[in-house]
Amino acid sequence: MTPDYGRAFALLRDAAGQTWADYTHHTFVEGLRDGTLPREAFLRYLVQDYIFLMHFGRAWALGVVKSETPEEMKACAATVDGLINQELQLHVGICAKEGLNEDDLFNTPEHPSNLAYTRYVMDAGQSGDLADLLVCLAPCVMGYGEIGLRLAEKAGDTPYREWIDTYASEDYQNVCREAGAVLDAALARRIGDDLTAAPRWSRLSHRFTTATRLEIDFWQMGLTG
Amino acid sequence: MTPDYGRAFALLRDAAGQTWADYTHHTFVEGLRDGTLPREAFLRYLVQDYIFLMHFGRAWALGVVKSETPEEMKACAATVDGLINQELQLHVGICAKEGLNEDDLFNTPEHPSNLAYTRYVMDAGQSGDLADLLVCLAPCVMGYGEIGLRLAEKAGDTPYREWIDTYASEDYQNVCREAGAVLDAALARRIGDDLTAAPRWSRLSHRFTTATRLEIDFWQMGLTG
Amino acid sequence: MTPDYGRAFALLRDAAGQTWADYTHHTFVEGLRDGTLPREAFLRYLVQDYIFLMHFGRAWALGVVKSETPEEMKACAATVDGLINQELQLHVGICAKEGLNEDDLFNTPEHPSNLAYTRYVMDAGQSGDLADLLVCLAPCVMGYGEIGLRLAEKAGDTPYREWIDTYASEDYQNVCREAGAVLDAALARRIGDDLTAAPRWSRLSHRFTTATRLEIDFWQMGLTG
Amino acid sequence: MTPDYGRAFALLRDAAGQTWADYTHHTFVEGLRDGTLPREAFLRYLVQDYIFLMHFGRAWALGVVKSETPEEMKACAATVDGLINQELQLHVGICAKEGLNEDDLFNTPEHPSNLAYTRYVMDAGQSGDLADLLVCLAPCVMGYGEIGLRLAEKAGDTPYREWIDTYASEDYQNVCREAGAVLDAALARRIGDDLTAAPRWSRLSHRFTTATRLEIDFWQMGLTG
Repeated sequence: MTPDYGRAFALLRDAAGQTWADYTHHTFVEGLRDGTLPREAFLRYLVQDYIFLMHFGRAWALGVVKSETPEEMKACAATVDGLINQELQLHVGICAKEGLNEDDLFNTPEHPSNLAYTRYVMDAGQSGDLADLLVCLAPCVMGYGEIGLRLAEKAGDTPYREWIDTYASEDYQNVCREAGAVLDAALARRIGDDLTAAPRWSRLSHRFTTATRLEIDFWQMGLTG
Repeated sequence: MTPDYGRAFALLRDAAGQTWADYTHHTFVEGLRDGTLPREAFLRYLVQDYIFLMHFGRAWALGVVKSETPEEMKACAATVDGLINQELQLHVGICAKEGLNEDDLFNTPEHPSNLAYTRYVMDAGQSGDLADLLVCLAPCVMGYGEIGLRLAEKAGDTPYREWIDTYASEDYQNVCREAGAVLDAALARRIGDDLTAAPRWSRLSHRFTTATRLEIDFWQMGLTG
Repeated sequence: MTPDYGRAFALLRDAAGQTWADYTHHTFVEGLRDGTLPREAFLRYLVQDYIFLMHFGRAWALGVVKSETPEEMKACAATVDGLINQELQLHVGICAKEGLNEDDLFNTPEHPSNLAYTRYVMDAGQSGDLADLLVCLAPCVMGYGEIGLRLAEKAGDTPYREWIDTYASEDYQNVCREAGAVLDAALARRIGDDLTAAPRWSRLSHRFTTATRLEIDFWQMGLTG
Repeated sequence: MTPDYGRAFALLRDAAGQTWADYTHHTFVEGLRDGTLPREAFLRYLVQDYIFLMHFGRAWALGVVKSETPEEMKACAATVDGLINQELQLHVGICAKEGLNEDDLFNTPEHPSNLAYTRYVMDAGQSGDLADLLVCLAPCVMGYGEIGLRLAEKAGDTPYREWIDTYASEDYQNVCREAGAVLDAALARRIGDDLTAAPRWSRLSHRFTTATRLEIDFWQMGLTG
């Protein structure tokens, strides 16, 4: 059972095939579920994820720059503010409990896997239009939603319950559904209703799969540094 | 008496000289103050200003893309959301009373003076760094604050009291002071504390004056179409 | 008889209708043809056109940034170098004969009509993809080719023969045909073969017409300053 | 003995310290020198380097977009054309001898180390100004020049003599000296003459070192895939 985050996501997810499964069922994810993930791996991930979120905020801001309608602008702008002025602060709070303040986070050397992922997304936006950008943002937004839901259902006794609950929450599931609706509308506007028949489909799908591949590298960075 | 919106603004304003006075004391502005501005001129302005605000929202979003610190990101992101999900809606409300819905606004042909101003700002951001962008955003943000304050004090019996009060309000004056602080910090970070001695000063000052010149054209567009 | 610069251009030109005619038969153009254009109007145009060409070079460079294939990159890169390291120098040569050196040109205050046009094109590239950018570049490239051809055939005794011959030349006509081929390929790749049926057609066509409108303002600037 | 590619490069190189040595004396480089580099490692590098050069061409094109003077534009535009319409074709020629045509090259899946490096550079340009971009481009341009010179002097009997000679050639050394002059002028213009005392120095130096670090990962990708 996969959650319904819209038509485009379902098609892009299918096209990504095994790569999607490798991302959403990565050893790191299974370790969150059954509690076997070493604490240091989680912390390594968390610190890099702070930097990731800053660039993710920049990428959604680039979405505002590239919007063509008031609806697109409003949706992207709300996400920018949500990410930077709320989610990032939540993150800072979790890290503070581990003894890391925001300056530590901000000054952490960025891992190459973090650079590769975030800058690939930024450049997709610089190179193409809003469709190119949104298909790169989808694997993170919706992948975490899908992982959160599955883990909430199947998780054992795990110290990572808070992480799981965040992404399984109705709030976050709404974020995924709204992002899916924005993606559907943006693609309909730019490539038409018959998504897979559009000339840009293979390139957009390739971008989605590349971003998914970079998510796998991000989990791996958490595991092995 | 000019309001205190920070060091950089005061220096840029001085450097703009007569151009700044021509902007803040434009016939359009004096017409708002004494109530002689024709209603149709105000409406012409209002409709174009809706489109202006959309691009202004895009420009602040570009500020998020170009931020180097969490503080810069947070300030720009808050402004993006404020502009797009609040101020723009206020605008829609005022226009609705005049019988114009948001689709009408969005589909109004953009005046060349609007194109010149908004796209100049966007390209300043694309071409330079956050300092280049912020000095282009300052004349609008702070100029309206300064105009609002002066008009609130000196306005006669005018149907444009609501417009004046918006920009004279403590809320809007805070926006100006915060934008001034962001500008001061962004310039200190990029060109140092001795602003007028920095190699980039003449170019940054030229950008500020150019944007001010484009504000004059914007008022003129309201007056004469 | 209109020259054949490819399918997309023909369709965009048709869609622009009277606006296209107003541009290609502007009083300024007719003055070049019959020699009635005042010298000072021509010089005013020439000086602003130097600044225009610099930004046009930037815009084709943005085309390289936004290319998706080696063919797109090669075509845009060749145009960038041609514009900046050749055409711009030709321009400098013509102006030198009039007693203006390159520093004078570079430091001329930019006219609002110049700002509006060039920055609109740059922002179209920042906002959209290569298709959005190329349809904004087409009116200038191909319009000058069409004007050049017509004037070469119909020009009377005019001091502007050199200008006319430049754009009527086989060299420049090849530039137009190649730009047309790049545009055709870029659109086929992004919106498919049935151009006018594609969801993006109306927006792309609107961009072409807007750029054409800004060409009219540019001639007008030459005439009336 | 290090070659003289200008003031800024010398200071940035010093600041990068051991990271610079790790890049220019990487095992891959020593394998080119003494001929012990496995052919398959060289080919793996060559194929990824084709993709790298395409993005490097895009990055120099972004330099045109971000230029503030005719000199900056001309230098960047010449480099764009040189890279895309000449150097890239040289590369295609070498690969053709190995049985790889340009379509094969273009369609090779991009390695994460390639993504990380090229997109980091593109985003530095999107985020900052020309100075931010040029310091990211310097390690590749000048590093290859320095490596070429040293290897030409010290190389034994190696099948990679052609590669070495390309970068040791007077032609390529001129490219390095010109890039160094562009960098010096761009920095003087933006941060002043006392480079290391400028507020932006630590950030620019950090960018240079980060790009150098990504060069190391690029060699490593050649060695180990």
